Amino acid sequence: MKRTSFANWPCSIARTLDLLGDPWTPLVVREAFYGIRRFDEFQRELGIARNTLTDRLRRLVDEGVLEKRPYDTEPPRYDYVLTEKGRDLFTVMATMSRWGDRWLAGEQGVPVVFHHDACGHDTTAEVVCSACRQPLVARETSMRMGPGYPDRLKRRPDVRRRFGVS
Amino acid sequence: MKRTSFANWPCSIARTLDLLGDPWTPLVVREAFYGIRRFDEFQRELGIARNTLTDRLRRLVDEGVLEKRPYDTEPPRYDYVLTEKGRDLFTVMATMSRWGDRWLAGEQGVPVVFHHDACGHDTTAEVVCSACRQPLVARETSMRMGPGYPDRLKRRPDVRRRFGVS
Repeated sequence: MKRTSFANWPCSIARTLDLLGDPWTPLVVREAFYGIRRFDEFQRELGIARNTLTDRLRRLVDEGVLEKRPYDTEPPRYDYVLTEKGRDLFTVMATMSRWGDRWLAGEQGVPVVFHHDACGHDTTAEVVCSACRQPLVARETSMRMGPGYPDRLKRRPDVRRRFGVS
Repeated sequence: MKRTSFANWPCSIARTLDLLGDPWTPLVVREAFYGIRRFDEFQRELGIARNTLTDRLRRLVDEGVLEKRPYDTEPPRYDYVLTEKGRDLFTVMATMSRWGDRWLAGEQGVPVVFHHDACGHDTTAEVVCSACRQPLVARETSMRMGPGYPDRLKRRPDVRRRFGVS
């Protein structure tokens, strides 16, 4: 079944979900952050079906999140390594992890602790405003149409209501 | 088809993906952050199939991300409102949005700008270490087994390799 494409919605959340809105794709990225590079390792660590893994790796390479680096030629074999675009997904992974730690861990405590080697302390990912460095929370944040918002939508009453402009 | 469940994996990323690892569920949550509360509004704004929306709303209520508040009795009608657990997903949404803004926006610029009403500046979500407040990046962060990591797995060679313990 062809899934709805969110890649061209005027929303960076929807566009990101076009790539990450599936559990296996972000889990493949998670493995890459754990240092996994090879097809058989991804397959074994995740217990993912090989055809599903092939599909997800291809998509991640096509999107520039992973790059293929040959390590053998006969037959050709590749490492899958995070690009800069891929490494930047650490922010999304770390934030998901913090939310899960807070709301889904239960009495036994968190399964995995992040340690910030740079400062030497255990850490959780905090989301702050790039301007004032204070925590960014929904009730103190509003969304506005940006330069890339499509002109053809800007006058629509439902869109103007969404962004609170009259 | 019954999807693999990630809810009991010893990883808060996987557990979070058990809920959010589908594009529609986070988009329903996004709409709630835009102030959408009613079934027909979610349906219209997202163009989502009604049975899919029914399913996603039920899951989000079951998981305690949204709560139902009656606004009419004959027939019974409900507002769907973010709980504290749901509002905390703003961190995940804002981080996805920043990643999409950076990597998927193209030449026309970002579609939506976040404005931090609390400080009066446009903002992007930055992910920082809770201890030192510096940006949290993958190459300066390591993952360790936490108190909730299952005892039965702690001795396994592949698990010890994953966490870099010998």
